[in-house]
Amino acid sequence: MQVQELPTDPQAIRELIRLGKYDGVTGGLAPGYVQANLVILPKSLAFDFLLFCQRNPRPCPILEVLDAGKPEPVLTTPGADIRTDIPKYRIFRDGELYEEVTDINGFWRDDLVTFLLGCSFTFESAMIDAGIPLRHWETGKNVTMFITNMSTTPAGVFSGPMVVSMRPIHHQQIVRAVQVTSRFPGAHGAPIHVDNSKAIGIDNIELPDYGDPTEFKDGEVPVFWACGVTPQAVAIKSKPSLMITHSPGHMFVTDMKDSALAAL
Amino acid sequence: MQVQELPTDPQAIRELIRLGKYDGVTGGLAPGYVQANLVILPKSLAFDFLLFCQRNPRPCPILEVLDAGKPEPVLTTPGADIRTDIPKYRIFRDGELYEEVTDINGFWRDDLVTFLLGCSFTFESAMIDAGIPLRHWETGKNVTMFITNMSTTPAGVFSGPMVVSMRPIHHQQIVRAVQVTSRFPGAHGAPIHVDNSKAIGIDNIELPDYGDPTEFKDGEVPVFWACGVTPQAVAIKSKPSLMITHSPGHMFVTDMKDSALAAL
Repeated sequence: MQVQELPTDPQAIRELIRLGKYDGVTGGLAPGYVQANLVILPKSLAFDFLLFCQRNPRPCPILEVLDAGKPEPVLTTPGADIRTDIPKYRIFRDGELYEEVTDINGFWRDDLVTFLLGCSFTFESAMIDAGIPLRHWETGKNVTMFITNMSTTPAGVFSGPMVVSMRPIHHQQIVRAVQVTSRFPGAHGAPIHVDNSKAIGIDNIELPDYGDPTEFKDGEVPVFWACGVTPQAVAIKSKPSLMITHSPGHMFVTDMKDSALAAL
Repeated sequence: MQVQELPTDPQAIRELIRLGKYDGVTGGLAPGYVQANLVILPKSLAFDFLLFCQRNPRPCPILEVLDAGKPEPVLTTPGADIRTDIPKYRIFRDGELYEEVTDINGFWRDDLVTFLLGCSFTFESAMIDAGIPLRHWETGKNVTMFITNMSTTPAGVFSGPMVVSMRPIHHQQIVRAVQVTSRFPGAHGAPIHVDNSKAIGIDNIELPDYGDPTEFKDGEVPVFWACGVTPQAVAIKSKPSLMITHSPGHMFVTDMKDSALAAL
C-alpha cells in the first residue's frame, strides 16, 4: 500500500498497521497528530529510566508511560495496542539487535513497561508552517544526527552522551526557529545549540554519526536539537536482558493533536 | 531568630537551619529563589510515585528526584543536605503522623528516595510583581485549599482527588493571572479552574478543607490552582511504612532561581 493511499486519521492508520496491511515509515502520516518514539523495558529498569527521562527532558520528552504489563496507552491513545499498532519493531537482547518484527505479541511479558517519547515530527511540522524550510524533507533524506560531547544527566544505570539532530537554518530565520520549536517542549523543544559545532564535540559537520549528511547553502547555520535517539542509545548501553523499540522512522501514531503539546 | 534578621541568600539560610538556629516557616525567605515541597518514600514505591508525578504535572511538578539513599540535591542545590536543611519535617508511619522533627538523620535509610516538588511561592511572587494582589499575603493567613471532585490520573498504588488552592482575583486581572502563572509550569503553572466552584465539587467556598477561609471583595472571582498538598495526600493514602515530608510552610530553600523555572 502506498503512503498516498493511506487514510489520514490516526485510528484508521493504526488499524491497517495492526492488520499487517502497512509496515512502512510513518513520516507525513496523520498530519496534525503526535507521533511517538517507543522504548519498552523490564520493570526492574523502569524507575531508573523514568528518572533518566525526567532529568533529561530535552532528549527524552515523556508523552506517556504505561503501567507494567499494560499494552494500551489509555491517556494518549485509548483503544490502541502497543504490541501491534507500530509498523516495525526492533528487539534487543542484552543490548544487541536480535530481530526486527511487525508485532511483539510473542515477546510480551507482564513486567514490561512502555515509554512513549515525543518526536521531532511535531516541531518540524510547526517549522514548515512557520515558513522555515527543512532540507531533509525537501530532499527525502534522513535528518543528520551527531553524538556530542555533552553529557546527559545520569540516573541509576543510565548515562551517556547526548545525541543531537542538526538542521541547516538560514541566519535570518534562527530566531523564528527558536521561537517556534520552544513551544513544543514535549517534542524536544528549543535548540540545544546554535552554530559552532566544534564546541559540542562535532569535528566534521559533513560526517554524521546517524542519518544522512546535509548540504549547506549560503547563509545557513547548523542548528542542533536534542534527539530521540539519545534514550535508545543510553538504554542499549545498559545491556537490558530485553528491550523493544520502534524501528527508525516507524513511529507510533497517537490520537494526541500536535496542538495539545504546544506550550503557551 | 526573627525572619527580618535572616540572611537573604539561600546557602546562608540553609546553614542556619542546619545548625538549628532557625526552625520557622520559609515564606518570604530568599526572595527570587525556588522553594520546594518535600516527599521522601522508600524505593519500593518510588517508580509508582514518580509515574504519578509524571502523569499529574500540575499538582506534582518535579524539580528534582534524588537517587536512592542520596541526601544531596546535586542538580538544584549542590552541597545541601536534605536531612538537615529543612526547618521542620513530618514523619509518617503507615500513613499516620508519627512525629515532627527538625532533622531526619535518625530516620535516614539507604533505600529512601527524595522528591522535590515545585511550590506556589514561585508563581505568587510573579503575580505580586505583575501587580496582582494576594489576599492571604496581605492578611498574613494561609492560602485557602479545597479537595475537589477532579480525579488525579492514578499510577500504581497512588490515586485520589486533586487538591486546589484558591485565590480571589478581580475579574479585570484574571487574564493577566493566567498569563503570569502559565509561565511557571514547574510551580503548578496556569489555573486549573476559574469561577463556578460547584463545578469542581466545592459546595461552600467559605469552608476550606485546608488552610484559612478567604473573604471576597466586590468584583473578585475564585481562581483555582493545582496544589502541592495533592501528592502528600495521595502518598499518605497508600499507607507507606515510612514517608517523610516537610511541615506545612517549612519548605526546602533551593539554589535555583525562580527565573530558571520560567517557560518562554
